[in-house]
Amino acid sequence: MVASPGLEHTSVRSPRLKAARRLTKRAFRQRARAFLAEGPQAVTEAFASGAPVTELFVTAAARGRHEGLVTAIARAGIPVHTVSGEVMSDLAQTVTPQGVLAVCGFVDVSLEEAVAAVQGDPAVDGSRPRLVAVLANVRDPGNAGTVLRTADAAGAQAVIFSDASVDPYNGKCVRASAGSLFHLPVVAGIPPEEVVRTLRGAGLRILAADARAGRSLDELAPGELAAPSAWIFGNEAWGLPGGLAEMADESVAVPIYGRAESLNLATAAAVCLYASARAQRLHRQGPR
Amino acid sequence: MVASPGLEHTSVRSPRLKAARRLTKRAFRQRARAFLAEGPQAVTEAFASGAPVTELFVTAAARGRHEGLVTAIARAGIPVHTVSGEVMSDLAQTVTPQGVLAVCGFVDVSLEEAVAAVQGDPAVDGSRPRLVAVLANVRDPGNAGTVLRTADAAGAQAVIFSDASVDPYNGKCVRASAGSLFHLPVVAGIPPEEVVRTLRGAGLRILAADARAGRSLDELAPGELAAPSAWIFGNEAWGLPGGLAEMADESVAVPIYGRAESLNLATAAAVCLYASARAQRLHRQGPR
Repeated sequence: MVASPGLEHTSVRSPRLKAARRLTKRAFRQRARAFLAEGPQAVTEAFASGAPVTELFVTAAARGRHEGLVTAIARAGIPVHTVSGEVMSDLAQTVTPQGVLAVCGFVDVSLEEAVAAVQGDPAVDGSRPRLVAVLANVRDPGNAGTVLRTADAAGAQAVIFSDASVDPYNGKCVRASAGSLFHLPVVAGIPPEEVVRTLRGAGLRILAADARAGRSLDELAPGELAAPSAWIFGNEAWGLPGGLAEMADESVAVPIYGRAESLNLATAAAVCLYASARAQRLHRQGPR
Repeated sequence: MVASPGLEHTSVRSPRLKAARRLTKRAFRQRARAFLAEGPQAVTEAFASGAPVTELFVTAAARGRHEGLVTAIARAGIPVHTVSGEVMSDLAQTVTPQGVLAVCGFVDVSLEEAVAAVQGDPAVDGSRPRLVAVLANVRDPGNAGTVLRTADAAGAQAVIFSDASVDPYNGKCVRASAGSLFHLPVVAGIPPEEVVRTLRGAGLRILAADARAGRSLDELAPGELAAPSAWIFGNEAWGLPGGLAEMADESVAVPIYGRAESLNLATAAAVCLYASARAQRLHRQGPR
């Protein structure tokens, strides 16, 4: 097949394409320390945040729709490959792919770096809100990505995925995070007990979200909610890992006022994170 | 094929099975005014709430796991059909069906009945919290079902699906609602303008959730949030239908403290509904 100049289609058998397709699997992502960011939003955020984008795959149609983005990436010296819609569907793993997909190096940081980001420079921002979300053995990638997006919106300084949680680079998690994976420090693969010890050492109050806790969010005084805090969210089905609730400073339930048995994990996390974020801001606007 | 006594398998070609399978499509649901409730939780809630369950399909394995439920339904004179795992997969439309599925008549009520439920008996509960969630042109069934579940948890008295919203009996919506479809009055198929006029006439303050609103949740005084309220949530992509924000008493944005562009619809709804629900309860515990 002769490639038409300027719109060179990458063959399905191209080694680059094969290597990219492998990144849909966790084991290959771990080995390459790279993942796929799909869609114009994720690719824009990855590139704008300075994440290590190493390749761009784009369909001819999407190239027209996102000319500015594709040109900026090409100008940065990053290889851009035009692919067919079929190849894109295969890479993107979505029913209606948006035609733009980047290979990106891992962006997670060490727990120490995340703690430094949370603490900030005490001389400059000693009284700013401090908020962290911890995913302890959360397995559903959609839930994990939604919590990451919500934590970002709530102004959290870091999100930590425990070692038994879903991989933050899972395609569904990246999509559900809607770009937030590139907005704030993300830590992955740390045992939850170590996370709790380290965050408490950094001066954060550890709040375990637990539907069965005796104390509800309504029973926490605004001052308590306004303290620098790390919220721990457990698994969708079995809750927090054994012993973790005991390690927390407080186990807190989202109150159920109606007849629902429970809340979805991501919605419960939204209520908890925003309760802290709003208390941290409103409390400081009050009398000092 | 000879059926073994007591464990009679319903043939794939049985007219009852064909009729049930059709209920996976909206047009057939509308015609029969019936839908499928899948999984032990949904079936239990449907039966316990007095919803018009007309048939139960169960696999032999699930029959063993949920003996109490199946027996109770059979004793109520409702036909119980044992089906193969393959037939169940086909009916349930899930990757891992839970082996129990009921045909259930529609449970939605008129807008007038919902308003009566919201108002309650003023002699008995004149000061109780009043909260309604309105889905205006929400198309994603997972989001709609999650908002229904969250509204139930937040103690809302009714959830209203506008005429251009997803069908509340969509299989994904029923699953995401986790039984809440059977817990509180649900209204379907009303133009959003009519919903707003009727709810305002019933004394509710109309709050439009709008990411672009000039006023944020943090700028509402606790007394404002504690007022009897109806929250309107718009479409995932295009927001509220034209003119609806103008009809509301207040357009309110969930504050974005970090770098996320927006929140997922169901998480934004959780933050709004719980902000009202908590303010309604905490405000009344304060000085009178």
